[in-house]
Amino acid sequence: MLEKIQAAIAAIPYPSRPEGLYEPISYVMSMGGKRLRPTLVLLAYSLFRSDWERALPAATALEMYHNHTLLHDDLMDRADMRRGMATVHKKWDDNTAILSGDTMLLMAAQTIATQRVGRFNEVNALFLQSAIEICEGQQYDVNFERRRDVTEEEYIEMIRLKTSVLLGCAAKMGALLADASDADSEVLYRFAEKIGLAFQLQDDYLDCFGDPKVFGKRIGGDILCGKKTFMTVAAMQRMADDEERGAFLDMLDASAESEEEEEAKIARVIGIYRRLDIPAVADRRIQGFYDEAKDILSTLTADTGVLWDYAMSLLKRKV
Amino acid sequence: MLEKIQAAIAAIPYPSRPEGLYEPISYVMSMGGKRLRPTLVLLAYSLFRSDWERALPAATALEMYHNHTLLHDDLMDRADMRRGMATVHKKWDDNTAILSGDTMLLMAAQTIATQRVGRFNEVNALFLQSAIEICEGQQYDVNFERRRDVTEEEYIEMIRLKTSVLLGCAAKMGALLADASDADSEVLYRFAEKIGLAFQLQDDYLDCFGDPKVFGKRIGGDILCGKKTFMTVAAMQRMADDEERGAFLDMLDASAESEEEEEAKIARVIGIYRRLDIPAVADRRIQGFYDEAKDILSTLTADTGVLWDYAMSLLKRKV
Repeated sequence: MLEKIQAAIAAIPYPSRPEGLYEPISYVMSMGGKRLRPTLVLLAYSLFRSDWERALPAATALEMYHNHTLLHDDLMDRADMRRGMATVHKKWDDNTAILSGDTMLLMAAQTIATQRVGRFNEVNALFLQSAIEICEGQQYDVNFERRRDVTEEEYIEMIRLKTSVLLGCAAKMGALLADASDADSEVLYRFAEKIGLAFQLQDDYLDCFGDPKVFGKRIGGDILCGKKTFMTVAAMQRMADDEERGAFLDMLDASAESEEEEEAKIARVIGIYRRLDIPAVADRRIQGFYDEAKDILSTLTADTGVLWDYAMSLLKRKV
Repeated sequence: MLEKIQAAIAAIPYPSRPEGLYEPISYVMSMGGKRLRPTLVLLAYSLFRSDWERALPAATALEMYHNHTLLHDDLMDRADMRRGMATVHKKWDDNTAILSGDTMLLMAAQTIATQRVGRFNEVNALFLQSAIEICEGQQYDVNFERRRDVTEEEYIEMIRLKTSVLLGCAAKMGALLADASDADSEVLYRFAEKIGLAFQLQDDYLDCFGDPKVFGKRIGGDILCGKKTFMTVAAMQRMADDEERGAFLDMLDASAESEEEEEAKIARVIGIYRRLDIPAVADRRIQGFYDEAKDILSTLTADTGVLWDYAMSLLKRKV
């Protein structure tokens, strides 16, 4: 399936003119990645029908849409690198990132709008509604960066909108393209949404407490760049007063000048998390979403083994 | 009709949360403007059916889309003012302009995608295709700013994509919503496209040679900010060599420090246009598009008087 997705992405036709509009789009789409969202579309489709290649154009369009959000988010975050490559506003300029990003959104919307597979009108409405919710999630993320009193529930709602909604959309889109019932389509949405929440919280958790060999990234990366994660929010909610929270934020925002300072900063922050019992808090939440996802999926009559295994491989969990 | 459009725009429901996402959208939509595109939708619809209020949601969505392009274009051009008010990136910040702009595009697409009036699937496809072409036009505009050898034909193709395509889309959308035939819908597209070209070139012309009382803006505004217009392109195409073109561009880019210098700069540039006979060149082009638009519209059997009068009122021309 992944091979077919990669081939479909590589086969997207880009006009050669105007110069500077489509080249950045092709560049972004060739950067790679797990192709998680199109895979979810196809796996969900395959629960109901075997001819999943019919869902490939919509699946590929969803990856185009996802990369549009990465392009605009990287610009807003002033992130210079993505997957080891220069981001578009860095390699070209800000205006190129804005305009090529807009074009990617439109190309995705156009592909999805012109499908005539399964319940295509509902697929289109689902996509656009999800995309609006994702903008809302991004805005909450921006707002939360300026606040000190974000609650766990608010944080979870933010990541639900910013990231889980698109996984729910992908899974439900697969079901709708395969002409599945309302009930089955909704089950897939809720399943993927919960998996998305578990996945995102686990990413925050592993950044602090993961095994670097399994995690694949340096431990403490989020801490070093002062990113507000679930761990930060959960810890701040458990601090005594604004003074303690202020001191913690100052520590998180301080830049480390040497490798020793970096290690010291990471150790200090992780020490605070341990003292406040945040590993257990996070683990309970992750397990909760994981259990919910499992319960939701079990209500489907179709054989969901492949979909479940895929989700678990993302979560890097043993079933 | 304009009253109903204004009322429909004022009645768009914006969620109150997340803070900072919908407020700039409501701000932009309340800035006013001629509401030219939704008016074209409704006038075109009325040629075929009298119940034009059915086309109001799509017409309003097209105005939302148009304002999305203005929002992102103003950000790319670093324009601080629009219709006498601060632009969104100025009043808020760049990231707000990016994200609220994306949301406007999605709200417009969602409204258009969920219409079930007339030939709605074709309306949706037309809208998305037009929006992609408008991105291409914007990219050509960016590219042309860096070039000295843009031809009149290239310039006209750029403004066709950047501005006329949306007028064509508006008029054809009205026809499709009213269940008009392919042929009639296409006639309306081509009519509005030509009117758009005439309108845009006339705007460039009037900036140099208009009557300030009728034009409503200061004469020479484009010259003062060094904007490349049809006049600039047509003049440069008629210059002897790169040396002359270079000197002209230096003059155009030079900033005027006092009112006397401003008047002198405007007089110098207009003097060059007159010497190269650009007023006549531009006038021939405008008249050509105007005649084409008239011919195209005359092939319709419906009574097009109101639509023609509206187009002429935009062009500020006597029939």
